[in-house]
Amino acid sequence: MRVRIALAEKWIQYEYKEENLLEISPLLLQMNPVHKMVPVLIHNGKPICESLNILLYVDEVWPHRKSRPLLPSDPYQRSQARFWADFIDKKIYDSGKRVLMSKGKQQEEAKKEMIESLKLLEGVLGDKLYYGGEKLGLLDVAFIPFYCWFYSYETCGGFSVEAECPKLVGWVRRCKDVESVSKSLVDPLLVFDYVLQLRKRAGLE
Amino acid sequence: MRVRIALAEKWIQYEYKEENLLEISPLLLQMNPVHKMVPVLIHNGKPICESLNILLYVDEVWPHRKSRPLLPSDPYQRSQARFWADFIDKKIYDSGKRVLMSKGKQQEEAKKEMIESLKLLEGVLGDKLYYGGEKLGLLDVAFIPFYCWFYSYETCGGFSVEAECPKLVGWVRRCKDVESVSKSLVDPLLVFDYVLQLRKRAGLE
Repeated sequence: MRVRIALAEKWIQYEYKEENLLEISPLLLQMNPVHKMVPVLIHNGKPICESLNILLYVDEVWPHRKSRPLLPSDPYQRSQARFWADFIDKKIYDSGKRVLMSKGKQQEEAKKEMIESLKLLEGVLGDKLYYGGEKLGLLDVAFIPFYCWFYSYETCGGFSVEAECPKLVGWVRRCKDVESVSKSLVDPLLVFDYVLQLRKRAGLE
Repeated sequence: MRVRIALAEKWIQYEYKEENLLEISPLLLQMNPVHKMVPVLIHNGKPICESLNILLYVDEVWPHRKSRPLLPSDPYQRSQARFWADFIDKKIYDSGKRVLMSKGKQQEEAKKEMIESLKLLEGVLGDKLYYGGEKLGLLDVAFIPFYCWFYSYETCGGFSVEAECPKLVGWVRRCKDVESVSKSLVDPLLVFDYVLQLRKRAGLE
């Protein structure tokens, strides 16, 4: 979703290939032999792997396509955007996984961590429209796909993102009004169906 | 060590403050409230956290100080350097920790992973002098501090990096001949003493 949003932000045409990670294609194995994971962007025949890395690549190859770059030019602001993007990958991803795939005390702890992390990210947003200011920036593109998991986090964890972080939900609504985002996100209910399958398989339901 | 090498590469004067992570200083808590970890670079009164992020910041603020930037200008080559730096943080750090802090089958698996990762990184180096080509690049600065842990990995895991990856050890020797590196690395035997203490505390010795 990150890569699709970034490519849409830059008005780049591309061919999209779905992968079944239970049966990895020879192409994926060839293009990402190290992690064997999606997403991979193939550009000029060469693979770029890891979603944040792809966002930076897309921004460097097409910095001024459509509008201004996703990363600001000021080195300090760039370092902050990278810091929080990394924070999302580490903390939101990790505590999210535990909210979805555990129960009892473990799940309570993960939920507490998740809410703390979301509040931190709400603080970083402050009163800005987007993390990028008036327009989407790197952090918006890196974070908004997690919105598709919010319904699952809330339902499995028994909490409300809106009650905990109302400003963050305002930001989600604004992002969803941006075409590059709205056409790239998947349905939160489909994500939840998938989560339920995983939970059943793990004996949690 | 990464930050010290990068600052030395750029001929930047700085004040160095050691931190005792068992008793975090108010300054560290103020400058890195999110992770409460070193390293933190304080520049113009503002903190930049996370070692790879600091390397990119230093390179962006002082791109042409002393010599050429740590990151090349070509977007694809930049993406490759970032990919492998991230690989080091994920794979070498993680399997290294398990080589040092486990035993039996778990340790054997970690050792196998570690050797695989080192061989991959040896392949990326190829026949170049440094990952950066004729001079140190981002990946050299990101990777060489792990050399200080090699003795511990080898001793705990029962293997020889030189026997497994002779070209990589050649690269280590060349890096150690660079002043910015030699004056920034810590003694591998001190690292091993520290590892032994940790292993004793964990009941592994």
